[in-house]
Amino acid sequence: IRRGAFPHLTKVIVKSHPADIAHIFRYLDLKDQRTLFNLIENPETAAYVLSELDHGTGAQLLEQIDKQTITEVLQEMPYDDAVDIIRNMPEELAEEILGIMQDEDSDEIEQLLLYDEDTAGGIMSTEIFSLNQDLTVQEAIEAVQQAGDVEMVFYLYVTDDDNHLVGVLSLRQLLTVSPARLLKDIMVREVISVRTDVDQEEVAQLVARYNILGIPVVDDANRLVGLVTVDDVIDVMRQEATEDIYKMAGASEEELLYGYKAFKIARLRLPWLVTNLFGGVITGYLMWRFKATLAEVLALITFIPVITGMGGNVGGQSATIVVRGFATGRIDMSTLRQVFFRELRVGMIMGAVCGLTIGVVAFGWHHNPYLGLVVGMAMATAMTVAATMGVMATSFFKRIGIDPAIASSPFVQTANDITGLLIYFGTATLFLPHLR
Amino acid sequence: IRRGAFPHLTKVIVKSHPADIAHIFRYLDLKDQRTLFNLIENPETAAYVLSELDHGTGAQLLEQIDKQTITEVLQEMPYDDAVDIIRNMPEELAEEILGIMQDEDSDEIEQLLLYDEDTAGGIMSTEIFSLNQDLTVQEAIEAVQQAGDVEMVFYLYVTDDDNHLVGVLSLRQLLTVSPARLLKDIMVREVISVRTDVDQEEVAQLVARYNILGIPVVDDANRLVGLVTVDDVIDVMRQEATEDIYKMAGASEEELLYGYKAFKIARLRLPWLVTNLFGGVITGYLMWRFKATLAEVLALITFIPVITGMGGNVGGQSATIVVRGFATGRIDMSTLRQVFFRELRVGMIMGAVCGLTIGVVAFGWHHNPYLGLVVGMAMATAMTVAATMGVMATSFFKRIGIDPAIASSPFVQTANDITGLLIYFGTATLFLPHLR
Repeated sequence: IRRGAFPHLTKVIVKSHPADIAHIFRYLDLKDQRTLFNLIENPETAAYVLSELDHGTGAQLLEQIDKQTITEVLQEMPYDDAVDIIRNMPEELAEEILGIMQDEDSDEIEQLLLYDEDTAGGIMSTEIFSLNQDLTVQEAIEAVQQAGDVEMVFYLYVTDDDNHLVGVLSLRQLLTVSPARLLKDIMVREVISVRTDVDQEEVAQLVARYNILGIPVVDDANRLVGLVTVDDVIDVMRQEATEDIYKMAGASEEELLYGYKAFKIARLRLPWLVTNLFGGVITGYLMWRFKATLAEVLALITFIPVITGMGGNVGGQSATIVVRGFATGRIDMSTLRQVFFRELRVGMIMGAVCGLTIGVVAFGWHHNPYLGLVVGMAMATAMTVAATMGVMATSFFKRIGIDPAIASSPFVQTANDITGLLIYFGTATLFLPHLR
Repeated sequence: IRRGAFPHLTKVIVKSHPADIAHIFRYLDLKDQRTLFNLIENPETAAYVLSELDHGTGAQLLEQIDKQTITEVLQEMPYDDAVDIIRNMPEELAEEILGIMQDEDSDEIEQLLLYDEDTAGGIMSTEIFSLNQDLTVQEAIEAVQQAGDVEMVFYLYVTDDDNHLVGVLSLRQLLTVSPARLLKDIMVREVISVRTDVDQEEVAQLVARYNILGIPVVDDANRLVGLVTVDDVIDVMRQEATEDIYKMAGASEEELLYGYKAFKIARLRLPWLVTNLFGGVITGYLMWRFKATLAEVLALITFIPVITGMGGNVGGQSATIVVRGFATGRIDMSTLRQVFFRELRVGMIMGAVCGLTIGVVAFGWHHNPYLGLVVGMAMATAMTVAATMGVMATSFFKRIGIDPAIASSPFVQTANDITGLLIYFGTATLFLPHLR
């Protein structure tokens, strides 16, 4: 489609829902995205498309066009999205853009730039609709009518004269009470709110737990400063899930920005792989130390991959369950003990089953019951140890403040390989006279 | 806390937000959940707690109490949640409950039971507020005032005389136009809706893409039958993400229902592990075939774990990226070709880096340049092959309709081990004279 038919495309773009245009962008590489983005003439549509894209991509798309247009497009966007894009720009460009913007806008944006990207302050929108508690219902309705296009009015937040958050109302509630009543007499006083520095993951968990459509954000003094709406929460949840999944495999969500650029992607994945590589070398060194045993009983070698592999699988399962448990709030430090003992028991049961199976296979294959015993025992122990290692490594990294999703896998894998082989070679050396 | 202090606990329960009670439930095992659940006296609170829990757990909690109370609690719940719990009950009990319920309720529920659990029909709520297009704005406002506690009124869906969905309005819109106008003249006619049989994952993607708070569900004839709200979508997204993460590690989300029951959990994880086990045995058999080569050059053995391990890592990365890409809609069959070649290039680059590293390590360690060459070449090829295998296996399983998240890992791992070793032993045999 994208071969020269530009005038036609321009027409299609004008007619399409901006969300659909944004959706198409996800399938294109940066070059095609640039071409298509330049065809969008309406700054409002461009702004919408940019809010829906990764903000890194957004910054890259904007860098190529002139600064006046950038500013225009950014001014059409909600402040929170504009801030995220500016964050991803080279510093010089960002400062120039802030200079061109009108004072009011740039003040607002510079304020937002102070919050950490992954906190309530970083994802909130500041165009929030609030009402003073001393208004009557009639006045409130008039205020709603004049409000214009504020971000999704469904909860009406009520503040006092100093902008402290004191209550909440639904629009429907306004319609069902007498117009002369004061807001402070009908509002609900228990408002669920978060401070600007609360982690975005926690914000998402609150919204999910209480089934609310938005959560007001307040500063240290409980003054209303913003609103996180449920669509922001959906983005956060999706992003965090993708991030966790990528991290567990040793990849990074960042690579989504690079489209099909193999070198940049390889560079993101390599550190994790090289860590694993050195773990593998240590394992190899360990085997070399036992070369005498191995040379005597070559059959032992053939079970090495299955023992280390199964240990890796079981350790991976435990680690995955703990990492996901931390992310969804299902596991915390207080339940960790129980989880540890559960995984220990599960590992023992699975180890017994797999150990017995592989023991019988080894016996049947090489007609040596001692070989079956050694392989089976090593498998059972290795799997049990791996299961507990998965829990211990993840919780250890969580405790010292390193993201367990990324750190645990190379560590668990190497530790498992080493303990698995030690157990294997240990029992093998013990039974060596019977294995010859 | 939970040792006998029941009267106190009962008081705490009465005072707490039902969402918080539900949250506590997630940290308890089934026995404690039962105890706590029986302390909840108010059927409304009980109903709320149940809607928030896994529906399997909900069914288990209800099974122990008398049928009259079950019925009462279920009648307090939104139909869609009640249906999900009934689905998880033993068939006999479910039928008895439906018998006790009032005709109206049980008709509604039996209707919903016809939809597949994972479709729009299965997650929608049927208590939907809609207005006839021939009403005036004034009449519509009155209808909203009298509506009572319908599930979240923020969009007002407009229907014709035959209940066909024809438009949508926001509550705020009603307040800003003249009271005498007809709804059909002010409503927005392009309504984003889904049919009852649309997969829940697709529903979630639509809601996320268009940033809407709910999506109306229609039958084959475009008649309005229900509404999927954004809080349902959040649950779906979280559930699907957890499911995918668990599956990739060979575990199952079902095990969350079993709390700390090790045997049941082990049974869920074992099939996947045993598949891997047999893959490992095949790898072992392959090594046995090359035992002559191995016996001659023992140093070769020490690099086996690192070569198979790194292949597994790279294959896992590609597979993870494709599985997640399918889930979020970022990758589909049309972009698969590009993804394949990207992963191929990434695999080649990473293979070159890791191959060079391990080659130098092998050379330095055993002072044999040919050993370095063999190990390095095998590593580079194995990693490249693994990267493409990760894409091919996942898309193959997707194409034949098997969930790639669960099927690809054992397959990718075994295939990688085998190709990795074949390449390794192949090059080793070729250079054997130089390795001795």
